[in-house]
Amino acid sequence: MGRTHSNGYNRVSSFFPELAYRPILKAACSRNKERVEAFAAQWGYESTETDWKALIARDDIDAIDICTPNNLHAEIAIAAANAGKMILCEKPLSSTLGDANKMAAAIKKAGVKNTVWYNYRRVPAVTLAKQLIDSGKLGKIFHYRANFLQDWTISPDLPQGGEGLWRLDVDAAGSGVTGDLLAHCIDTALWLNGGIKDVSAVTEIFIKERLHQESGKVEKISIDDACIFHCHFANGSLGLFESTRYARGHKALYTFEINGEHASIRWDLHDMNRLEYFDHRDESIVRGWRSILVTDGDQPYMDKWWVPGLIIGYEHTFVHQVADFLKSLETEEDCAPTFKDALETQKVCAAVIESANSRSWMEIKDV
Amino acid sequence: MGRTHSNGYNRVSSFFPELAYRPILKAACSRNKERVEAFAAQWGYESTETDWKALIARDDIDAIDICTPNNLHAEIAIAAANAGKMILCEKPLSSTLGDANKMAAAIKKAGVKNTVWYNYRRVPAVTLAKQLIDSGKLGKIFHYRANFLQDWTISPDLPQGGEGLWRLDVDAAGSGVTGDLLAHCIDTALWLNGGIKDVSAVTEIFIKERLHQESGKVEKISIDDACIFHCHFANGSLGLFESTRYARGHKALYTFEINGEHASIRWDLHDMNRLEYFDHRDESIVRGWRSILVTDGDQPYMDKWWVPGLIIGYEHTFVHQVADFLKSLETEEDCAPTFKDALETQKVCAAVIESANSRSWMEIKDV
Amino acid sequence: MGRTHSNGYNRVSSFFPELAYRPILKAACSRNKERVEAFAAQWGYESTETDWKALIARDDIDAIDICTPNNLHAEIAIAAANAGKMILCEKPLSSTLGDANKMAAAIKKAGVKNTVWYNYRRVPAVTLAKQLIDSGKLGKIFHYRANFLQDWTISPDLPQGGEGLWRLDVDAAGSGVTGDLLAHCIDTALWLNGGIKDVSAVTEIFIKERLHQESGKVEKISIDDACIFHCHFANGSLGLFESTRYARGHKALYTFEINGEHASIRWDLHDMNRLEYFDHRDESIVRGWRSILVTDGDQPYMDKWWVPGLIIGYEHTFVHQVADFLKSLETEEDCAPTFKDALETQKVCAAVIESANSRSWMEIKDV
Amino acid sequence: MGRTHSNGYNRVSSFFPELAYRPILKAACSRNKERVEAFAAQWGYESTETDWKALIARDDIDAIDICTPNNLHAEIAIAAANAGKMILCEKPLSSTLGDANKMAAAIKKAGVKNTVWYNYRRVPAVTLAKQLIDSGKLGKIFHYRANFLQDWTISPDLPQGGEGLWRLDVDAAGSGVTGDLLAHCIDTALWLNGGIKDVSAVTEIFIKERLHQESGKVEKISIDDACIFHCHFANGSLGLFESTRYARGHKALYTFEINGEHASIRWDLHDMNRLEYFDHRDESIVRGWRSILVTDGDQPYMDKWWVPGLIIGYEHTFVHQVADFLKSLETEEDCAPTFKDALETQKVCAAVIESANSRSWMEIKDV
Repeated sequence: MGRTHSNGYNRVSSFFPELAYRPILKAACSRNKERVEAFAAQWGYESTETDWKALIARDDIDAIDICTPNNLHAEIAIAAANAGKMILCEKPLSSTLGDANKMAAAIKKAGVKNTVWYNYRRVPAVTLAKQLIDSGKLGKIFHYRANFLQDWTISPDLPQGGEGLWRLDVDAAGSGVTGDLLAHCIDTALWLNGGIKDVSAVTEIFIKERLHQESGKVEKISIDDACIFHCHFANGSLGLFESTRYARGHKALYTFEINGEHASIRWDLHDMNRLEYFDHRDESIVRGWRSILVTDGDQPYMDKWWVPGLIIGYEHTFVHQVADFLKSLETEEDCAPTFKDALETQKVCAAVIESANSRSWMEIKDV
Repeated sequence: MGRTHSNGYNRVSSFFPELAYRPILKAACSRNKERVEAFAAQWGYESTETDWKALIARDDIDAIDICTPNNLHAEIAIAAANAGKMILCEKPLSSTLGDANKMAAAIKKAGVKNTVWYNYRRVPAVTLAKQLIDSGKLGKIFHYRANFLQDWTISPDLPQGGEGLWRLDVDAAGSGVTGDLLAHCIDTALWLNGGIKDVSAVTEIFIKERLHQESGKVEKISIDDACIFHCHFANGSLGLFESTRYARGHKALYTFEINGEHASIRWDLHDMNRLEYFDHRDESIVRGWRSILVTDGDQPYMDKWWVPGLIIGYEHTFVHQVADFLKSLETEEDCAPTFKDALETQKVCAAVIESANSRSWMEIKDV
Repeated sequence: MGRTHSNGYNRVSSFFPELAYRPILKAACSRNKERVEAFAAQWGYESTETDWKALIARDDIDAIDICTPNNLHAEIAIAAANAGKMILCEKPLSSTLGDANKMAAAIKKAGVKNTVWYNYRRVPAVTLAKQLIDSGKLGKIFHYRANFLQDWTISPDLPQGGEGLWRLDVDAAGSGVTGDLLAHCIDTALWLNGGIKDVSAVTEIFIKERLHQESGKVEKISIDDACIFHCHFANGSLGLFESTRYARGHKALYTFEINGEHASIRWDLHDMNRLEYFDHRDESIVRGWRSILVTDGDQPYMDKWWVPGLIIGYEHTFVHQVADFLKSLETEEDCAPTFKDALETQKVCAAVIESANSRSWMEIKDV
Repeated sequence: MGRTHSNGYNRVSSFFPELAYRPILKAACSRNKERVEAFAAQWGYESTETDWKALIARDDIDAIDICTPNNLHAEIAIAAANAGKMILCEKPLSSTLGDANKMAAAIKKAGVKNTVWYNYRRVPAVTLAKQLIDSGKLGKIFHYRANFLQDWTISPDLPQGGEGLWRLDVDAAGSGVTGDLLAHCIDTALWLNGGIKDVSAVTEIFIKERLHQESGKVEKISIDDACIFHCHFANGSLGLFESTRYARGHKALYTFEINGEHASIRWDLHDMNRLEYFDHRDESIVRGWRSILVTDGDQPYMDKWWVPGLIIGYEHTFVHQVADFLKSLETEEDCAPTFKDALETQKVCAAVIESANSRSWMEIKDV
């Protein structure tokens, strides 16, 4: 994720020239000296560090961006907050709910600007969905459903752990698809449709053991390969969520749909520049799902890019989040989702895993 | 449904001229004399009855086709079986699992040919899906998901009960979307992916009371407006099912998708002549979901219809079922789904409702 | 085509019970006695003839339906008209413009009810397109484009002539894709967008000779394998038409699109129950192409069929044309397209072929 | 276009770190001093010029990128070539064929590296199409069709000329949609399907006069609002091209399709990350158009971007062209399309306009 964030910092000022602040890439940090130097050269960082504590100790650093495996987020974020740094943290907030709580508390105490990289909120079509829902166009909501389907772990020969595969190692990741993929779906859902009251979940591990790249041994897999849950939202609607890495044919198929009394919306990441919209108030004989190509200047963020009809891609969402973060420095506004917002997602994820383990409904409560 | 069945009987011999048997429309039966006579004239029935017992008593009737509300299926079917008639029964088998058991037992005892109108098995694209799965193209199955989304009951002004609306009256229907819509999804799933072991469900009633057309009073709604469940299949795959009549923008959106180790399949009723197929064994640079227009003569049933590219519609599925039923009279084969098959679907439906009511997992067992 | 017409006659009264007239299948006629008897048995004709003149001579026959190869239409139609029979004729009207003129003149003189089976006008989505255009929703028209793409003649091993392949024999067919496929596109275009003033065309014969099934010899191919033309419509819009039997991957892909000042419409036969509609007057942020599933009771013909969401197929267009023809017997209205209308299409087809042959623009004039 | 090119230069080294050369943004040039300085600040240019001749005179400039209106390309390009600069020129090569010839001759004489920004060749899906065609997968080609549809000039209130609207002014643009949009289609076609032999075209001006922003008077429109042509390719296939700015509902709908004996390909810019592919050699019952999401590392350029399933956008095509241009500096290879290639496109455009004006077929010859 270091590449997407770096690209966001590098591009934001050309496309959002009106911003008062510009990011300066002071330092890149990673344990491997050779690799961090190559990375810094490639992306234009002024210096490098191999110890994150040294980075936090530096006076010339105003903000820390955390892209480590999930289980390392907490210590770094808390130290950075205590040092008064602004923090931009990869999602999910942490590998455990306990750590996530501590992180949110530390941030609150420090009072520093912060944001969590749930980048899909800033796909223009998704932001437009939020605007349409907030405008009341949908009316009372009955259903929300989302899934995130991938197929990259089907081969039993794929190992776990280590370079590029820490997501399959429960110690590093905390959970499997729940924290990696469903967390995105939940963040968007909480934003678009409000709080979740309770969940009933099932998880599955289809391939029970894999070679661990670090130990060199075949070890048990303890992360969830797939997770499904249904839930009640506080607004009375029913929710349905599914995620898996065993859906042959889908690479990164994040989709959601929301059905209201008057109108419905659906979206998917593979065709991320389109929003599908159905409005029952249209004249009956010409009523149908509209495929909205979200590339016009009056649609979110699109005045910054190209002429109508010309699409943008995945990494633009990070540019948007950088821009909004920088904007937040000019105002009293937060750049959502903050640690506080991300903690709510973490609570739902924790309840989902607990529900699956206990085969029972779990309520989402304050922790 | 009397129209679709009658159309099936009327058309089958022109399109399946090789069949040894031809249906003869001896009698139409309904309580309202005037209306049943109009119906008989319109569809070519030779005579009419207003009492189903009289119909069953007739010697010139070989087969009884049951299209009544669900709660009346059992008595008629059992009487017909006892009278040695062949039976074609609308789905679901009954409004209660208890009645469904009795029906299956009566049929078994009578040894008469029988079938239940889960017509979607005979959409050519769905039949093709079955052939592909049976051929082993998909490999080990990881996921099965299906939904059936409608939007016709969103208005609170819609009454319940009586003409055309018995599906909203729990006494006539037994359940709501579970028996009406999910039953279709479950029948297809059991056929394509084998038995279901256990379910965890949630149901919702969005509009709590409606004017009852027969009583003239506002009465409580007791059928499920929406139902979601996840489940384990016997083959180790996870299942996910959803149905609702509150999904604005969807009229009869029955969809399913099955993800296997090597290949995946998806289908939806709105575009019922297409089957989507993804095969991971395709050359990697040109791998993609294939949109198969199922209209060629080597695809199921399509040698009976038109030239490639020209589609068929909803009612053709009933013609196909009639043809297969007639064919079964020439052979020792059953015309699936039989009462025995439909009982399995009924068991899952009953477990789903019980799971939702008890907020707990329910196993599917022999009853 | 005898099957689709017969099915239309057989089904119309069940689905359009309000009509004053019902078709009676008095006789089927074909030169091969054995085959016409089998056909009559399969489709419910009361009798058979092997000589069309005998058929026309019968007093108990009110209407003649012509499904022969194109070059035989004229003689039969003129004789039938002279005998005072109503006529339903397959498209195109004839294999030559000269014959077509004589047919139209004979019909006019006889004053008999008549129609030509350009069946695609009666796809509900296409009829809806006509209504939307007539309502003024599109405003001034700028563009009309249509194509009809097939791929069934790509193999050089496919023979020409004789059973099932007279369409490749210039003597029987008159032209290739122009009369067979583009004629459909042109009929719809004239109906939706008015008269064509002039055309500039190109045709191609990709495979120059094929075995002739009747002569047993390899003979030159003289029909057009592919035809493209552009044109001016009388309303000032530009037209673009293409047809081929060499478009790998397309079975019967008839599509059209019309672009107006305010709105646009597109349709394709493979997904014939859908109409795509774009209205620029929609609120800008939610503007998009609407995919209208034309299955509601307030859309053309669909009150006759099933509940919303359930689709119909190719052959229903013939049922609709039979119904409209029967309805025309109750009124002073013609059942368009009549021979007079079909003559206009024939003029365009003739000009297209002449333009291609002369490599020059051709005007469409009265003949 | 200055923005897309500048973005290309700024991003290329982060995503293509293996390249031996890195672009340095030495100077931005535009007549308006204030604006060029703002532009330079926004995009990171080291200096500015307001006179292009001064720019060419500078020793520290190795390459000139031309983004002016079409009628200014020739003088600048020829001067730059004479000064030994490398040249990257916006398309079309020029506003007249005469100038284009002079430009190509000047470049040839100077022997400098050059490229023309027909950027759509470097959409990964389009590059993949080229690879598939070159591999022989399609077999003999029968048809090529392309269009480029927009709708931004429908309002008669839109003025012509001046800031942002020089494309409607014939003096600045040379032609309308032919040079602006069809030129893209033709460049791709020549690349994918080889040379064009002759063309037959029609053009239309729907709105005959518009206020000119510079003169302040209502003036005649002389550019083509719409252009359609058909043609013969040297390989025996038929071509069909259409472009317009009056196709309501389409923003930048560049599509092409190519039909071969064995396989077909289609693509459209609105969904530019997808390639549709049909292969007749697939097993018949599962044959269908494949929707290939071109985001995998083994597909062109995609190893440089994100994980499978995550898409890129319009401006990435310019990054790719910059990368390929830089790569060409390391090798003897040209970075196509060169001025020589672009001259071929210009010849076709000229023949198209001449054919439309003369209402006759025009051959494409060496000039």
